[in-house]
Amino acid sequence: MRELLARAARMASRGHGGAEPNPMVGCVIADHDGRVIADGYHRRCGGPHAEVDALTAAGARARGAIALVTLEPCNHHGRTGPCSEALADAGVAEVIYAVGDPNPLAKGGAERLRERGIRAFHVPHAAADELALPFLKRVRTGLPWISAKWAQSIDGAVALANGDSQWLSGARSRRMVHRERGRVDAILTGIGTVLEDDPRLTARDVRVVRTPRRIVFDPDARTPLDANVLQTPTDGAQNPAAHTATILVDLSSSTDTAFLRRVEALTARGATIVPLGRGGAIEPALRALAREGVATVLVESGGGLVGRLLREKLLDEAWVFVAPLLVADDVARRSARGLAPEVLAEIPRARLLSVRRRGADALLHYRWASALTTPTSS
Amino acid sequence: MRELLARAARMASRGHGGAEPNPMVGCVIADHDGRVIADGYHRRCGGPHAEVDALTAAGARARGAIALVTLEPCNHHGRTGPCSEALADAGVAEVIYAVGDPNPLAKGGAERLRERGIRAFHVPHAAADELALPFLKRVRTGLPWISAKWAQSIDGAVALANGDSQWLSGARSRRMVHRERGRVDAILTGIGTVLEDDPRLTARDVRVVRTPRRIVFDPDARTPLDANVLQTPTDGAQNPAAHTATILVDLSSSTDTAFLRRVEALTARGATIVPLGRGGAIEPALRALAREGVATVLVESGGGLVGRLLREKLLDEAWVFVAPLLVADDVARRSARGLAPEVLAEIPRARLLSVRRRGADALLHYRWASALTTPTSS
Repeated sequence: MRELLARAARMASRGHGGAEPNPMVGCVIADHDGRVIADGYHRRCGGPHAEVDALTAAGARARGAIALVTLEPCNHHGRTGPCSEALADAGVAEVIYAVGDPNPLAKGGAERLRERGIRAFHVPHAAADELALPFLKRVRTGLPWISAKWAQSIDGAVALANGDSQWLSGARSRRMVHRERGRVDAILTGIGTVLEDDPRLTARDVRVVRTPRRIVFDPDARTPLDANVLQTPTDGAQNPAAHTATILVDLSSSTDTAFLRRVEALTARGATIVPLGRGGAIEPALRALAREGVATVLVESGGGLVGRLLREKLLDEAWVFVAPLLVADDVARRSARGLAPEVLAEIPRARLLSVRRRGADALLHYRWASALTTPTSS
Repeated sequence: MRELLARAARMASRGHGGAEPNPMVGCVIADHDGRVIADGYHRRCGGPHAEVDALTAAGARARGAIALVTLEPCNHHGRTGPCSEALADAGVAEVIYAVGDPNPLAKGGAERLRERGIRAFHVPHAAADELALPFLKRVRTGLPWISAKWAQSIDGAVALANGDSQWLSGARSRRMVHRERGRVDAILTGIGTVLEDDPRLTARDVRVVRTPRRIVFDPDARTPLDANVLQTPTDGAQNPAAHTATILVDLSSSTDTAFLRRVEALTARGATIVPLGRGGAIEPALRALAREGVATVLVESGGGLVGRLLREKLLDEAWVFVAPLLVADDVARRSARGLAPEVLAEIPRARLLSVRRRGADALLHYRWASALTTPTSS
């Protein structure tokens, strides 16, 4: 059964980029000897849920079978009918789900199944937990899921003091980043990166599932009016919010008229202005963006913004590409900065989710407890 | 055959700590269908070579068999008789070796085998190459093999600015380091580490195969007379050179009488003084130590010494334990420093030999081309 749930989790992950802001969900329909009859996943928000996808594939063979789902089937009359009813109508005999649905609108699926005489069991599964985290975080905290990625030297340099960061990551690493850009709702960077590299922050040479909003953390509204992030991307038609940049500005420092003129000019240039909280706090801005449908954020920035996200406990995960060289320079730019911890033991530790090789680089994947400290299976 | 050579390489690696300054060598004796008859390795310097170890285990079954050896069998009447003769005497029909013996005293084994009517083939094998590198480097360059290990945060900090480095690496990482300490000829650290941490640099709570010399890079002879490295370790009986510390001093700055008095006091305290080269160059000191039998050096130091070794192209490999936290502090101490590269693309790149998990840490193993740039199989 654990193997079938693992399979359901693998199916679910195929929905990454399509399913959000809905959760990624996978479903396997199997017979009582554990043989797979059909499987399915939630491919895109607004499309069929994983259960319906799998039931469609199974057809009449679903009768008397077991359905294994990574998330509790919904009991919600939304864009699609409730999955609990669909499973019952198809004659499934038993439903096993790995994560309870925390969504107050959709929950109660297991109860509804039992009312219709179907056995429904909650069987926790780590991979399903992982997949559900972004969705659970948003439902519980109202914040998007924040992933950072960066390429660094072994000794943590992301660029030389003169700004040179050429060839710090290999071609495979860069390709993976572009692929991820095409699967998230937003890319967040800092004003330092905009001024220095003038990035376009678009997904290139990969299949784009969604066009991300490009967000600049820019408390003082210094984004140049000719910056590349203010250009409409050529592939941007799908997502009007991605036509121009979203600038996070600290409006609490609004007495300065030069600052206000810069904000005005950016607005006139088409930029969307979202206010930061007091002292440039990022959380209120991210909360506002989540309400506008930003469920997943990829952070591609220098160490300053990474440090701020850490300080506000907003960082959920990081993909760190480690290039095989030592820069050995005290003034090189670092992958995270701006904190001044006094005691190492008090720094929050991440969990190392995976270590692997990517070409000549090592790829380390970390998860911070951040805003979501409780385990998801309850 | 590649599998059998891989097996021979695994056997060889068991000799690490025992075999040096001889090369680690493994030998598998197999029949013509590839079935293993016996295997062996070079357990300790002065003991039987791998071939003899395997031939002893095989007994009469060696007749007509194939011997696969990671290094060309020696043709040298040293502490043990030549392995070429032993293989021929045992009636082996064929010998396959992965790395040609570069030692002018011992080479010619394959030729000797052919003279005695035995087929001898050179079949390169990557794992055997790796194992032979420390030996090949010493034979070719007169320098010991230099491995560094350190524990760092994701962003390359080895300690906070206040010196705190507690709990930066996990228990498994620390244990692995102690095990390695008991397998090398010398541990090299910097004066900064001695002044700050006053380490003993002994192998503790592990099986000690050899007692390493403790070497301090200390150009200005600032090692305190009551430093722990100057104490005789309780388990030090095996290796008289390990009774006290070896201090690498820059005697070219010898006009200062206070400096000379410090050198004198260290000598009186029992320390062995080895001169650095001009400008504090480490290479001449390492060359002198190699002549005294130091074939393998483990570097456990701060970033300053690592940077110096990089600059002199002396570093052969590094084991980097990455603890799952971001220190995010610009003034934290870094794992490598003291270079000021202008262009990233010009920094020599290491090769990532392995990435793996060690408890909560990632362990990255790197190899630099350093002094030994040519491939070993020729």
